[in-house]
Amino acid sequence: MQFYGIEENLKEDILLRRERVAELMRQGGADALIATTNVNLFYLTGRIPDGYFYMTREGLCALFLRRPHSWEGRGIVRIKHPAEIPEYLKKLDLPIPRVLMLEDELPFSEYSRLRSIFGEPETLPSVIRNARAIKMPYEQQLLRETGLWHAGAQQGVPGLFRPGMTDIEYEIAIFHHFRELGHPGFFRIAGHRMEAAMGTVIAGDNAAVPSPFDFAMGGAGRDFFPFAACGEELSEGKAVLVDCSGNTCGYLTDLSRTYSIGRLPNQALDMHDTALAIQAAFVSAAVPGARCCDLYNQALDIARRSGFEDHFMGLYQHAKFVGHGLGLEINEMPVIAPKDVTPLREGMAIALEPKFVLPGCGAVGIENTFLITRNGPERLTPGDDAIVSLT
Amino acid sequence: MQFYGIEENLKEDILLRRERVAELMRQGGADALIATTNVNLFYLTGRIPDGYFYMTREGLCALFLRRPHSWEGRGIVRIKHPAEIPEYLKKLDLPIPRVLMLEDELPFSEYSRLRSIFGEPETLPSVIRNARAIKMPYEQQLLRETGLWHAGAQQGVPGLFRPGMTDIEYEIAIFHHFRELGHPGFFRIAGHRMEAAMGTVIAGDNAAVPSPFDFAMGGAGRDFFPFAACGEELSEGKAVLVDCSGNTCGYLTDLSRTYSIGRLPNQALDMHDTALAIQAAFVSAAVPGARCCDLYNQALDIARRSGFEDHFMGLYQHAKFVGHGLGLEINEMPVIAPKDVTPLREGMAIALEPKFVLPGCGAVGIENTFLITRNGPERLTPGDDAIVSLT
Repeated sequence: MQFYGIEENLKEDILLRRERVAELMRQGGADALIATTNVNLFYLTGRIPDGYFYMTREGLCALFLRRPHSWEGRGIVRIKHPAEIPEYLKKLDLPIPRVLMLEDELPFSEYSRLRSIFGEPETLPSVIRNARAIKMPYEQQLLRETGLWHAGAQQGVPGLFRPGMTDIEYEIAIFHHFRELGHPGFFRIAGHRMEAAMGTVIAGDNAAVPSPFDFAMGGAGRDFFPFAACGEELSEGKAVLVDCSGNTCGYLTDLSRTYSIGRLPNQALDMHDTALAIQAAFVSAAVPGARCCDLYNQALDIARRSGFEDHFMGLYQHAKFVGHGLGLEINEMPVIAPKDVTPLREGMAIALEPKFVLPGCGAVGIENTFLITRNGPERLTPGDDAIVSLT
Repeated sequence: MQFYGIEENLKEDILLRRERVAELMRQGGADALIATTNVNLFYLTGRIPDGYFYMTREGLCALFLRRPHSWEGRGIVRIKHPAEIPEYLKKLDLPIPRVLMLEDELPFSEYSRLRSIFGEPETLPSVIRNARAIKMPYEQQLLRETGLWHAGAQQGVPGLFRPGMTDIEYEIAIFHHFRELGHPGFFRIAGHRMEAAMGTVIAGDNAAVPSPFDFAMGGAGRDFFPFAACGEELSEGKAVLVDCSGNTCGYLTDLSRTYSIGRLPNQALDMHDTALAIQAAFVSAAVPGARCCDLYNQALDIARRSGFEDHFMGLYQHAKFVGHGLGLEINEMPVIAPKDVTPLREGMAIALEPKFVLPGCGAVGIENTFLITRNGPERLTPGDDAIVSLT
């Protein structure tokens, strides 16, 4: 398959990714796989066409391309309709898959159409998401670069604060700053219920307001978008948690820092120290083989022993995770959650975000992105984890 | 069902919306319907919970609510898992639907889970999208307000230009300006392939670069987001098309204006005049009963007679529509397209966007949002349609 002039190291990485997906397909008993979501097309071809990436268990690939019309090359088959895919296979005397992997997150109508086109084969959930959990060398390089960029961009956040600002005004200033430094203004999230622009700024009692979305923290937001900043004034004694995505190349890092308006109550400072203790314990324990559920329980234990369990990951509603995989989407596999028994593996990228909510003050805590290496987590988002005063 | 303290006029509107959906359900032969996408929950409840809105063909409603836990009231049933929905119906001796409408755009896994929970009933595509095409009185009021806001915000766009800017820099300045005036920084789009932040700024030959997304115009963008601005310098003789969503309350308007750096070629000015002629013809013809395909063909005819057919809605790839419904999503029904035989109806909201691409110059044209009334289109986005010079 031709590589439309993409760099050599991306090309090599893509071949490794396909190899890994093919291996998981064989383990799962699939004959072939189709990828057609933007994120998986980008993962497997390095670009985002309007089309269908087809791969057999032996690793044979073709891109059935609808648009753009300008792409040409070996392995690219121009089509108008996906029904032409099985026709093409028949014409070349290639087998029609009896077991086909399709992306579970596809809309029902699109999934059903593909299944029907292939004569209603047995379908299995796609393993691309599983493959993506372990970052290939070039992906790791991009994550490292994004992490550095992110940490640098975050340095400018305190200087954007002006007394009397609301959380929304501060959010606007921060996102604009991130955009000026190269953030494209959006990031990708898995899950049809999940919506967000670039990140969140939550302060004061808004931090305790539950959200219907599966993010770590809530916030009332607006009626048509019930999440994050809501117009809360950033006044004396409030904690301001800034949690923005790092994004310059499609690969995402996640980083949160706590800021204070004036002095925070001692309890908030203790909670922040507990978050740092949870992070330190994770850094010691998160070696390949460590199970996600055990890492979650270790975090919960520290919160419990500090007496802050009721404030951990929310106040009226508690997020049931303390960290998550990330890469092309902000929420990838695995999840540092009580039910995820996945053992960590080299090449996984994990954002750990122990946070606490204190009524009358706000959310405190930390988030950093780590790459799991043979020797444990490599931190991709450097910088000071302490609470920074904005006043 | 309780209305969590929402305004009286929204409450009345919601009852009308549900009545309309129930009518379409009866016409379609469904016993019941479930809505669980954010946009349809907002449409039918006025809020976005994590839950399932259930409605029978007779119009009986319940909200099966997972989160937030704080909501209570008549018609709200707290659940942890959707399997509790049929259990609840059985407990109340209510019938289990034999024909169930589900949202086609749900992920396959979620759709299949709901179908399985209800014992594999016959499922039909949801009619909520069809109902949403015709805006209810309160929705019309919100669209009018958004349109005025949008037109006002657009006034500030020329003043943000600085010589030597790239399209991305101008986009960042414009989006920041929109955000400062109340735009939440994102808008909703239907379709899993469709992604965008707040809108687009395209200039020069970037306007001719085809995109894999189904927007009216393209633009190279970046490899991980192949759409819109790409770093093109805004230099002498280039047209700059600014197409941003209007959004302050979840209801969207769409508006594009053409700007010029210095003087544009005469051909570009002629094309812009052709776009205005297409808009004028639409305004005359778009009365209730007029078919979308006929309105499209009328637009295409004008482009053809002006000799600009090859430049109409793209250069190397032509968008096969010249307008689209909009409301809670930027792309609703109907579409002003050759294949859409829908007759216009009172209460439809349509963004008409005749645009042309001239090599070496860029995209010119116009976009405004109209509400279809008994007497024809009411324009919601006032302002001057002429090309405005930025220098």
